[in-house]
Amino acid sequence: MNFLEERIIKDGVVKPGNVLKVDSFLNHQMDIGLMDQMGEEFHARFAGKPVTKVLTIEASGIGIAYPVARCFGVPLVFAKKSKSVNLDGDLYTAEVESFTHKNKNTVVVSKRFLSADDHVLIIDDFLANGCALQGLISIVESAGATVEGIGIAVEKGFQIGGRIIRNLGYQLESLAIVESMDDTTGTICFREQG
Amino acid sequence: MNFLEERIIKDGVVKPGNVLKVDSFLNHQMDIGLMDQMGEEFHARFAGKPVTKVLTIEASGIGIAYPVARCFGVPLVFAKKSKSVNLDGDLYTAEVESFTHKNKNTVVVSKRFLSADDHVLIIDDFLANGCALQGLISIVESAGATVEGIGIAVEKGFQIGGRIIRNLGYQLESLAIVESMDDTTGTICFREQG
Repeated sequence: MNFLEERIIKDGVVKPGNVLKVDSFLNHQMDIGLMDQMGEEFHARFAGKPVTKVLTIEASGIGIAYPVARCFGVPLVFAKKSKSVNLDGDLYTAEVESFTHKNKNTVVVSKRFLSADDHVLIIDDFLANGCALQGLISIVESAGATVEGIGIAVEKGFQIGGRIIRNLGYQLESLAIVESMDDTTGTICFREQG
Repeated sequence: MNFLEERIIKDGVVKPGNVLKVDSFLNHQMDIGLMDQMGEEFHARFAGKPVTKVLTIEASGIGIAYPVARCFGVPLVFAKKSKSVNLDGDLYTAEVESFTHKNKNTVVVSKRFLSADDHVLIIDDFLANGCALQGLISIVESAGATVEGIGIAVEKGFQIGGRIIRNLGYQLESLAIVESMDDTTGTICFREQG
């Protein structure tokens, strides 16, 4: 097991409905040392990629993407989930359905921050059905930019998102892939990764 | 002028309605080098405070709070703007009205992440009317924890928030305090700070 899988076993909590709570260290309270370690791991897995921007989606994605952007020495851009009065009209937009929150959002990125010259590393905390990720990918493609790779903290391997993204041919790196969870025993099984 | 004021003069854009757009480097696209420099500055301004947690509010606050939490070597907790199905029922809550988005949110923090033993440094990107900050303060006090200080990137000095917070006796450190803006000329005037 890697450092994130070990931490999930130690502090993750399985809830009914295939909900994995990692809010004590990842997406409500954040262990900055762990985040920095994840940033270095993503930097290693995408080493040599000509990354010019790291793209994530608010809110918890920002904490995962921050150390990645530092390691690559590039700006972090986060997609916003609703149109703010502070955003220009000139936006890339995508419809995203949240598995967790059971709602739909329009995610937006200002056209000033993604261009055809950009090589984008997409980072997010969770991958389940992949809707959020597909929205980010479509925004990058709307910009004519290149998706250099996709880094995810926790992938739910028993849901469809990861297979879809890999079938689309993207380099998808998930630090932990949960194959199964049991909320009655609290057991969490991870996919073996080379 | 300090490094943030200089950056605001260089890349900030004044819009009608006293809107200061800093989204090219602070709250949509983030310049990680600048964020890290802000983190070190906040760490210096609150040096010697026995900080055990850094508290902010999603989304853009996370990028400001991350390097601060690293400098102090403590966890980052971010308040969420709506009740997620992944959050336990056991929450500290506060009603917050957004000046920017012209809406009301209930902000929540899980009771597992703030206790009476905590010494909290509150960090956010903007201070205008102070509603968001008052919500975070009330959440810290609900926990019986101590507010050790409040760090803000950009304060709108011509709005009431900063005066209210300082009158309440808190150490409020704003890296840039905008005294006035003119969207016709693009002029931005900062308050002199010792």
